[in-house]
Amino acid sequence: MLYLIGLGLGDAADITVKGLQAVRRCSRVYLEAYTSVLTVGKEALEEYYGMQLILADRDLVEQGADKILKDAAVTDVAFLVVGDPFGATTHSDLVLRAVHAGIPYKVIHNASIMNAVGCCGLQLYNFGETVSVVFWTETWRPESFYDKICKNRSAGLHTLCLLDIKVKEQSIENMMRGKKIYEPPRFMTVSQAADQLLQIVQRRREAGEELGVTEDTLCVGLARLGSDDQVIRAGTLQQLASCDLGGPLHSLAVTGRLHPLEVDMLRTNAEPNALERLIEVDSSTFTS
Amino acid sequence: MLYLIGLGLGDAADITVKGLQAVRRCSRVYLEAYTSVLTVGKEALEEYYGMQLILADRDLVEQGADKILKDAAVTDVAFLVVGDPFGATTHSDLVLRAVHAGIPYKVIHNASIMNAVGCCGLQLYNFGETVSVVFWTETWRPESFYDKICKNRSAGLHTLCLLDIKVKEQSIENMMRGKKIYEPPRFMTVSQAADQLLQIVQRRREAGEELGVTEDTLCVGLARLGSDDQVIRAGTLQQLASCDLGGPLHSLAVTGRLHPLEVDMLRTNAEPNALERLIEVDSSTFTS
Repeated sequence: MLYLIGLGLGDAADITVKGLQAVRRCSRVYLEAYTSVLTVGKEALEEYYGMQLILADRDLVEQGADKILKDAAVTDVAFLVVGDPFGATTHSDLVLRAVHAGIPYKVIHNASIMNAVGCCGLQLYNFGETVSVVFWTETWRPESFYDKICKNRSAGLHTLCLLDIKVKEQSIENMMRGKKIYEPPRFMTVSQAADQLLQIVQRRREAGEELGVTEDTLCVGLARLGSDDQVIRAGTLQQLASCDLGGPLHSLAVTGRLHPLEVDMLRTNAEPNALERLIEVDSSTFTS
Repeated sequence: MLYLIGLGLGDAADITVKGLQAVRRCSRVYLEAYTSVLTVGKEALEEYYGMQLILADRDLVEQGADKILKDAAVTDVAFLVVGDPFGATTHSDLVLRAVHAGIPYKVIHNASIMNAVGCCGLQLYNFGETVSVVFWTETWRPESFYDKICKNRSAGLHTLCLLDIKVKEQSIENMMRGKKIYEPPRFMTVSQAADQLLQIVQRRREAGEELGVTEDTLCVGLARLGSDDQVIRAGTLQQLASCDLGGPLHSLAVTGRLHPLEVDMLRTNAEPNALERLIEVDSSTFTS
C-alpha cells in the first residue's frame, strides 16, 4: 500500500492519529521536501515518529518515482507531504504511477493553507481562484497573478496568494557546468510579494491602465499558520510591503468585498481603529 | 483557553495528535453537530477520547455562546468541529465573543472538504468560488448556485458544491405550535443535487437561455471523503442524477477546463473508456 499522508502546517504533532499509525506501519517513509516546509525539520519528525525518513526532492519524485513505489504492492510505503497530499501536481503523478502499477493507495488528509487561511477571518467560500506569486528574476517578471487577483476582486472575491519556494535550485553557472551545487533555500515573504505587486501597480498606473488593486488595497499577511508563533497581519498592500512577519512559510490574502463579520475578525489582527479607515480608502478602488 | 479543534473528515482517528492532546486537557468538550458530520457519532468519539462530549446544536452556538465560554479564561474548553473550524460563519462569531471577553483562543486545523476535494484529481488551484446547493421547497427554489457554477466554468474553473444539511429542523406546523419536535436529519445526496441542477437546465432551456452547464457537463460525485468506504464517481450531470453513492456526507464538483493530468486522475474513478467521450461531449457546451 502507498500511503499519501498530509502533515498539516505546524510541527510534528499536527499529523493525524490515523496518519501517525500508518507511518509507524511502513517499511519506508519518504518526506516530500520541495513544495512546502513545516516549522520543524526532518530530524524533529524522525525523533517524533521514532523512524528514519528518506528526503524526497523534486528529482526523486518526478524521475525516481519507481524507487518510491518499489515493492509497495507487498509492503507499506508512506509519502509524507506538508499540508494535504493533493496541493501539488506532482503528487497526482505519483498516484497515477501507483495505479498503473497495480499498487493500492490511500490518502490521509490534513489541513493545508488552502483551508487553514480561513482562520484570519476571511470566509473560505468568498475566495476565488488561488494564485501563485513567483520570484521575479531580471529577465522574467510575469504579472498574470495580478490580473487574476483583480478578476477575483471585481467579482467581490478574496484571493489566496501562495508565495514562491526555491529549494535545491542551481545557479545558471553551476547548472551549465553540471555542478550539483545548490543555492540556499529561499522562501518568499509577505513583504517581497507585496513589493512585487506594488511594482506592477506602479507600472500599470504609468501605462494609464485601470487598477483593480492599488497601494491601498486591504490585504492579510499570514506567517507560520498553525504553529504556536503564527502571525496574521491585516493592512494595506503598502503597509505589508514593509512588514517583517519572521521566518517561513508566508502567504498573502488579498481581500475582495468584506462582510461585517469578516471585518470584525480582521480587526482582531490590525492596529486598533485602523481597519475602518483602511476599508473606506480601499472601497474607492473597488471595481464592482 | 478556548480550543477550536478540527476533526477532519473520516472517523475518530482523523483528529490530529495535537488536537487529541488538547481535548484530553480540557474540562469541557463541545461537539458542533449541525454544519457537518463524521462517519461515526458522538458515542464513538467519547469512547475514543475517553471523555464525555456536550452536543452543541445551532441554538447553543448562536444563542448560548456564553455557556460555552463560561470560565474559559481560567480553564480549558474545547469546541470540536468536523473538518476545519473555520468552514462555517458561526464559528467566527464564537471566536469574536471569546476575544471580546478576553479569553485566549487557539485553532487546531484539520482537513476539510474545501481542500480534501483535491484527491479526486481536480487541482485545487483550478477551483473558483465554492457554492452551496440548498434543498428546494415547494415555494423556494433559488438558482443562484447554477449561475456561479457557470461563471466559474466560463473562466475555465471547477466548482465545489457543498450540499445542504438539515439537522434539528422543525416542521412549520410544529414551529407554529411552539413544539420542540424535530424532523429526522436530512443530508442532500449527489443525486438530489444533480437533479436540482438538471431542473434548472431544463427550465432555462425552455426560456431560450444560453447554457453554461448542461446534462452532459462532466461532474464528480464525492461521498464520505477520507473514510475507508469513500466513493468518488466521475460522470455527466445526467449520470450522477441517477447514481447512489451511499450514506452522507456527499459533495459535488462540477468541472471547468481540464488539464490532461486531471483527466488521467478522473479516469481512475470513471467507467473504462467513458471519460474521453464525456469530455468531448462536454467541450461542445464549454463557453470559453
